[in-house]
Order: sequence, then structure tokens, then C-alpha cells
Amino acid sequence: MLGWLKQYRRALLAGDVSAGIVVAMMMIPQGMAYAMVSGLPPVAGIYASILPPLLYALFGSSMTQSVGPMAIIALMTAAALAPLAAAGSGLYMVLAAQLALLSGVVLLACGLLRIGFLANFFSRPVMSGFTIGSALLIAWGQLATLVGAELPHLHVPSLLLGGASLLLLLMARAWLARLLRALGLSGRAADIGARLAPMLVVIGATVLVALCDLAGAGVHTTGAVPAGLPGLNLAVSNAHWRPLLQPALLIGFMIFLISMSAAQTLALKRQEKLHSNLELIGLGAANIGSALSGGFPVTGSMSRSAVNFSAGANTPLASVITALLLAVALVAPNRWLALLPLPTLAATIIVAVLGMLELETLRVALRYDRGDALALVATAAGVLALGVEAGVVIGVMLSMGTLIWRASRPHIAVLGRIAGSEHFRNIERYPAGTDPGVLLLRIDAGLFFGNVEAVNERIEDELAAHPAVRHLVLVLSGVNAIDTSALFGLAELNQMLRHRGIGLHLAEVKGPVLDRLKASDLLATLNGKVFLSTVMAWDELAGKP
Amino acid sequence: MLGWLKQYRRALLAGDVSAGIVVAMMMIPQGMAYAMVSGLPPVAGIYASILPPLLYALFGSSMTQSVGPMAIIALMTAAALAPLAAAGSGLYMVLAAQLALLSGVVLLACGLLRIGFLANFFSRPVMSGFTIGSALLIAWGQLATLVGAELPHLHVPSLLLGGASLLLLLMARAWLARLLRALGLSGRAADIGARLAPMLVVIGATVLVALCDLAGAGVHTTGAVPAGLPGLNLAVSNAHWRPLLQPALLIGFMIFLISMSAAQTLALKRQEKLHSNLELIGLGAANIGSALSGGFPVTGSMSRSAVNFSAGANTPLASVITALLLAVALVAPNRWLALLPLPTLAATIIVAVLGMLELETLRVALRYDRGDALALVATAAGVLALGVEAGVVIGVMLSMGTLIWRASRPHIAVLGRIAGSEHFRNIERYPAGTDPGVLLLRIDAGLFFGNVEAVNERIEDELAAHPAVRHLVLVLSGVNAIDTSALFGLAELNQMLRHRGIGLHLAEVKGPVLDRLKASDLLATLNGKVFLSTVMAWDELAGKP
Repeated sequence: MLGWLKQYRRALLAGDVSAGIVVAMMMIPQGMAYAMVSGLPPVAGIYASILPPLLYALFGSSMTQSVGPMAIIALMTAAALAPLAAAGSGLYMVLAAQLALLSGVVLLACGLLRIGFLANFFSRPVMSGFTIGSALLIAWGQLATLVGAELPHLHVPSLLLGGASLLLLLMARAWLARLLRALGLSGRAADIGARLAPMLVVIGATVLVALCDLAGAGVHTTGAVPAGLPGLNLAVSNAHWRPLLQPALLIGFMIFLISMSAAQTLALKRQEKLHSNLELIGLGAANIGSALSGGFPVTGSMSRSAVNFSAGANTPLASVITALLLAVALVAPNRWLALLPLPTLAATIIVAVLGMLELETLRVALRYDRGDALALVATAAGVLALGVEAGVVIGVMLSMGTLIWRASRPHIAVLGRIAGSEHFRNIERYPAGTDPGVLLLRIDAGLFFGNVEAVNERIEDELAAHPAVRHLVLVLSGVNAIDTSALFGLAELNQMLRHRGIGLHLAEVKGPVLDRLKASDLLATLNGKVFLSTVMAWDELAGKP
Repeated sequence: MLGWLKQYRRALLAGDVSAGIVVAMMMIPQGMAYAMVSGLPPVAGIYASILPPLLYALFGSSMTQSVGPMAIIALMTAAALAPLAAAGSGLYMVLAAQLALLSGVVLLACGLLRIGFLANFFSRPVMSGFTIGSALLIAWGQLATLVGAELPHLHVPSLLLGGASLLLLLMARAWLARLLRALGLSGRAADIGARLAPMLVVIGATVLVALCDLAGAGVHTTGAVPAGLPGLNLAVSNAHWRPLLQPALLIGFMIFLISMSAAQTLALKRQEKLHSNLELIGLGAANIGSALSGGFPVTGSMSRSAVNFSAGANTPLASVITALLLAVALVAPNRWLALLPLPTLAATIIVAVLGMLELETLRVALRYDRGDALALVATAAGVLALGVEAGVVIGVMLSMGTLIWRASRPHIAVLGRIAGSEHFRNIERYPAGTDPGVLLLRIDAGLFFGNVEAVNERIEDELAAHPAVRHLVLVLSGVNAIDTSALFGLAELNQMLRHRGIGLHLAEVKGPVLDRLKASDLLATLNGKVFLSTVMAWDELAGKP
């Protein structure tokens, strides 16, 4: 905790300050926009960007993570609260904070229980599909705000403002970095400058609203923002603990997943070490802080953390500076905030989520592994069809489904002896000799509940195909582990073979696996022997009656 | 379909007839008792034992499976319907059939989609914990019926009848088989005879009710039973499709799991082959049949199928005979059914579920694998604390959890060369020589999303511990597969090592894994070489600057 502060050196300060300023300028429009996605007044997005990063700086483990509002978590917040309260109502705001509190407690509990391995429940293709589906849902949800009316109606001034903002942002995305570089900026400075386009467009649009009285023309704006910092308090609705629990579990899980994947990418670049359990605690504290200060669930954001990183952040001090700047923005005279046009905010959201439509994983998976590509597409379709909450469950199920499906088709080879050698090879790939009385099967997978039946079935098939077999030798050189279910499977196999008068032998059992098996009854009751090598089994068993 | 009938031989008939009779005598009290567990009138248990086994005989794949009411599925039915209708009401009966219909359709769809591998989502310890928790819940639920009143109240005549029935059944369970053997019966006949104790106790208790007018004394009985066979019809409640969907998915999953585990045990003994997809179709048809004939969800029962098996069943004809006998029992004058005392039925249920309290798996797991033992206990506790539906979800989560948890701690060994040989071994276990510029890491696990981060972290740690390393060689002799997530992990590792000027090499890549990798960009962009063997990598890389 605060290890970074104890070892702070002056040389780190310049990077942290510049990153803190850049991220603050990115955070103001982003925070307000994502508050809008979650169904809250835009100012809640600023509230959620002050205390959370401060608490994360205290407890988290990543040096460059920028914790605050994030598009997918905002979407999940909206999905969780929609059935419970009307967007914008007082109850809705209370429940948003309560959801952050519950998610924070879930994260904190997981961190204290040290179950950070939970992040491994999503495969990369499934995460990619989940992100794509969520991005499309978010963009779709902003269309009405962009055009100022429920489709198919249009509000022309809003449409013009929103459309112009969208166009400018898309152009900035395509060309601004290149333009700044042509103007003499360094590559990195140009990239960072381009990231500030949303801030510039929002300022420009706000000025336009003020000058042309677009609010009078019916363009929706953020409206009066309470002055000053959020008070520290916690109003909860006791009737809603239960309905919020399941969403909080799903949101907590995604907060962790999204934050870890952002932090890991950056840690890899800097050769820093992440601690997933500290990360859970940091995110838990950040969300509890968000709840206490009128916010909503927050997480580390990939896009913002990457900017933080490349703008020079060396330590969490950068995030502390960002938080302080946002607090200043709230305390300073901020009547201008009231004039911020919502169609422009919607445009910043749409352009931001376009950046989440990453198709590289799909492209690779289509060539490398059709099953993974299918899981990706199915997850995206599931999010679009059934919503983001169901999407998390579908994602876990598809990740586990592909895992179990592959496990249920283990590779098993019948071995034969390469003439004149001590080597044994798959008889389908090599010209290897066999013995009618001895069946050598090499199992190329750890044995666990997911493949017990498949292995037993394959053995049954091979025995049916080799009726003269008196000895079955399982070559376990590829078996890294045997779980309790598989232990029972082997015991049943042993008993069945004993009934039929067939010996069951094991060969090339790995050290750790053998140590384990010695703690069971299997070896004592084995209807055969354990051989160090396949050739030893062969020499003893082959050619005998 | 009906393959068994086409090849039917006369020699099989005697076994099928005797098994059919024995199972019918076991089915009558059991069916009525499990109907009671599910909150339905006892006669529904007989209805659910006629059409389902006939349809299973048409479509299923097991020769000795006895399909009908089963304790855990009855408990799940009660849990699903409790929030929707009052037990015993007309709507309750409609919804029970509708639930069977939905479960049947789910099973049929899974069978036609050939996704029988779904059975692999429960580990054996988790299944054991689920069964223990459910058995305790069922026994607890029958206590009030056994004593004739809600505890702490007691209805003395009911308590005496229920208590006496319980005592007789427990004594029969402990000693009847031995007694029959002492009276000269063969071991198998004695075992089967002992299984008929519930039938005898129920008949005795019914006679007692009739002689002593215990119904007049306030002992609850089954009451008037509609005469004749159930009509074939299907009343559904259109308002309840949605709330029944999730329970139907969970119940369908457990129907399949329970039936498969019963059928597999028996198939292994007879060297028969099961087809999980045919099994799904057979169970789907059976449940749709149950729905059409006034029943509730059904499955293959381990205890009943074992009796069927040991009473000599050779083919599904035994189940057909059982079904016909039950139909006859309904058509014959059956006023006696009305006098069947509920406390005695409750006693048969309690004794039956005591048989499900199997502690062998826990005993083995405690010695062999603490993680599996913990999963078992946690599943049982989850069923008891949160109910049987949540228990299924908890079971899947714990099965997957133990899997991912183990995967997130892969065994990785630093290899060294055994002096004077071409062998490379774990330097922690063998005196093997290393080279400061070359790091050989053997990964003893398939690479997939569950261990990508753990592997990358370990590599990072080893590189930090060996700062002079210029070449990292991953020895993949134990890697049976690499999924898309791990492919991206390797690509990121490759890029990171390139930045640091460290070569990434692969050695001993298995044939199928290498074939796969050739369909990706990894090998083309690899910052190093692919070596056939570790010694070839060593010879080329070691001792160079």
C-alpha cells in the first residue's frame, strides 16, 4: 500500500503531472457521457471520477490504471436499474450508488478471499464478442439523444449539432494525429493531442449553444449542475438489496475483468507485476468510494489508461492529479457545464465505442480455431439479443462450454514399437509393431471430470476392436493431473477389467501424479503394475500367452 | 430405434418378465411417494410411470434403465412450482405437466443438436454433494407428513404409524436380505426380495388403516383416486411459459445427469455402449409423454435401474411389462389405493433417500484432493442453504471453479541438461546443468484462457531471476493444445521479448499443435526458431554470447 509514494523520486513528477492534466481533460466529457449511458445526470460522471481514483491509488497495484466511469459498466448499470426505478429519478440515483456499494463489497470480499483466479472464466474470444455486442448496444442507445427525438422522429437542430459533432470526431480520429505530426509535434504528443478532440468538440459545441441559444431551440443540455463537491453520504433503499445482488455480482465480475485486461496490457509493456488480489481490493475500495460520493460503478478503462500511460504516468500520482483537477472543475464557477449539449455528448459516446469494435480476434480465430470464432459471434449475438447481463452469463457458459467440449474429445493414440528401438509411437502415424495380447494407449490430456466418460468409452471401443488383449497399458506421459472424478473412473475401469480377466497397467506416470495416486487405494488394488517406461511394460507383457 | 426388439430372442424373455414384475412392485409405492415430494396427488406418480418408460423403450439407448419419478427431480419440481401455484391445486397440476413438457423439449433439442457433452459440467464430488444436500432436504420435507402435523406439534396415531413404518423399513434394510438368504434364497433373489420391503410395509399399513379406521382417527391417506388410465391431453397455462423456462433448463440438465450416471454404471457392467445423444432424445420423449398423461418430470433412477438390472432385465421389454402392470393396477378396482396412509409413504421416502447419503466420495476426496472435498461440502451446503435450484448453479460453478483454479496454477519446470546425455530434466529434482544465456521452461499443461496469465507471470518471474538470459526456449512436450486466447498470449510474449532483445523459441511441439500453429501468424513472426528437440535448441543456443 502506497509503496509507490515511499519510493517517489522527483524525476517521476513531470510525467505524472502531464498525464494527470491530459487524463482530466479526457475524463470530463467521458465521465459525463458515461453517466448519461448509465441513465444518470452527467455530473454523476464527474463525481465518480474523484474519490474512486484516489482510493485506487491507495490500494490498487497498477501504476498506470485510470479508474472511473467506463462504457460497458455504465451500460450494465443502466440494465440493472431499468427494472427498478425511472431513469433520472431520486430513487434511481440512490440505487446507482447502492449498486456501486454492493459491487465494491463483492470485489473487496473476493480480494480478501484471494480468489483473483476468477478473472480466468472468460476466454479472449468471448471477451471480444462481449465487447463488440456491448459497444453496438451502447451506440444504438445513444441514437435518440444524437437526433434529439425518438426515432423515426428527428429534431433538426439537435440532429445538425449531433451530426456535426460526430463528423468532426470521426475526422479527428482518422486524421488529427497525422495532422499534428505534420505540424511538427512528436509522434507521442500528436497521439495524445488527438485524444483531446472530444474535449475540444464539447467546448466548441457548448460555445455554440451559448451563442445561438440552441437550448431555446429545443436542443437538450445537461442543465443546472449542483455547485461544489459531492457530499459524502450514503442513502440506501433497504427494499432493494436483494434485487441488486445478482446485478452487483455480474457487474463486480466485469469490473474486475475489464480492469485486469487493461492493466495487464500496460504492465506487460513496463515489465511491472500485477497482483490480482490487490487489484480486487483497489477496485472494491474505488467502488465503495464512488457510492459514498454520489457516483455509480467504476472500473479501470483500457482507452483512458492507455492515454495515461503514453502521456507519461509513472505512478498513481497522475490519477491523484486528475482527481484534484476534476474537483477544481466542480468548485470553480461552472455555469458553462449547464449548457453542454447532449447530442454532442452522444456523438462522443458513439465514436468512443466504435473504438471498441475490435475484429482482430475474430479474424485470427476464424483461421485458427472455428470453435473459438463461434463462441465470439454467439456471445456478441447473445448480448445484442438478450442484453448485457445475460451476456455475461452466456460468456462464462460459452468459455466453459468450449473448454468442456474440447476436453470431451481427448486425443488418445494406440502405440506400437518402432522396430529395433525402445521408442513407441502412434501406429496411425508411424510403422510400429503391436502385440495381439497387449494394448498400449497413450492419453494426451489431463484426466478430469470433463473427459472421464470419453476416455472410458474410447478404451471400451479399443478393447472391442482388439478382443485378444490380455493387458491394457495406459501410457500417462501426457497426463499432468488426475482429479477425484478421474480417480473413480480409473477404479471402475480397473474393476471392470478385472471381471474380464484383463490386466490394467500404468506406464510413464509423472512424478507429481504418482505422488498423488499413492494417497489413494488405486495402486494397492490395481489389477496390474506401474511401469517406469513403456519399454519396460512391453518387455514384461508382450509375447506372453 | 427398437434395435433390441428386432434382435429379440426367446431366451431373454424370462429375465425381462421377472424384472418387469419386481420393478412394478417397487414402482407403485415409490411413484406415489415421489409424487408427494413434488407436491402432487400420489396417483400422478403412477401416471408418470406408464407412458414415459414406454417412450423411453422406443427412443432411449440403455437396455436396463427404469424411467419414472425420481426423488431429486421431484424435489426440483416442487421448488420450481412452489412460487407459482398452491400445492395440490388444479393450476399446480397443469404447471407440473407443463414443466415436464418444457424439460422434455429442452432434452429433445439438446439430443437433436448433439450436445450430450453437457453432462460433463458436473464433477463427481459436486454430484455427490448435490445428492447429499438434496437427500437431506427431501427427508426434512417429509418430517411433517411422517408425524401427521407441523412440528413441534405431533398427531399421535400418525406418528405411531409413521414411526413403526420407518422402523420396519430400516430393519428390513439392515437385515432382510440376510434373513432371506438364511431362509435359503440365492444371494440375488434375497437382495431383490429385500427391495420389495416398501411394498409390503405399504400393504400392511393400508390393511391396518382399513381394519382400525385410522383415517377416522385423523391419519391422512391418499384419498379417492380417479379410476382408470389418465386421459391423453395437455392443458397449459400460457402465462407461465416464461417463469417455467429457467427451472425447465435446470431440471432438464439434472434429468440428463442423473439418468446418465445410472445408465453408465450399468452399461459398464454389461459392456454395453451408451449414446448420450440418444439418451437425451429418449429422456425428452419420456418427459413429453409424462406431460401428456398427467405426470411430472421423470428420469432414470439409479436405485430402480439397479433392481431392474439385477432382477434380470435384458432389454427395455422389462420396462414395457412394468408399465403394463401399472396400467392394470389403475384399471383394476383400486379403492384400496384411497386408504394408503401418507405417514407410511413419508417413511418410505425417508428410508429411500438415506440410501442416497453416499460418503465414499467424500472419504476418498479428503485423502486424495482437498479442493474436490471442499467443492463437495460446499455444494451440499449450498443446496441446504439456498435450495435445490440454486444448488445446480452452484454445482456447475464449483465444478468449473476447481477446474479453472487448478488451471491457473500450471506446473512449469526450469530444465537443465543431465551431464553427458541428451536428456533435460527439472533442475529442482535432478542435478542438471544450465547456461546463463538460455532459459529452458517446460510447461506441463495445455495452454488455454484459464492459464495464459499464470504462464506469462511465471515467465516474467523467471526472466527477472535470470537477467542474463538472451534466449527463452518453451519446451512444449506436455502441451496437448493451444487455444486462441493462448495464441494471443504467445504473440504478446513474443512482442515483449523482441522489445527486450530476447529470442523466443519453441521445442518439442506436438504434431497436432504444430499443425494448428501453422494456420496462425505466430510462427512467421516468431522472434526465434522452432526446434524438434530440446537438445537441438541447446546445441544451437547454449554457450553463445
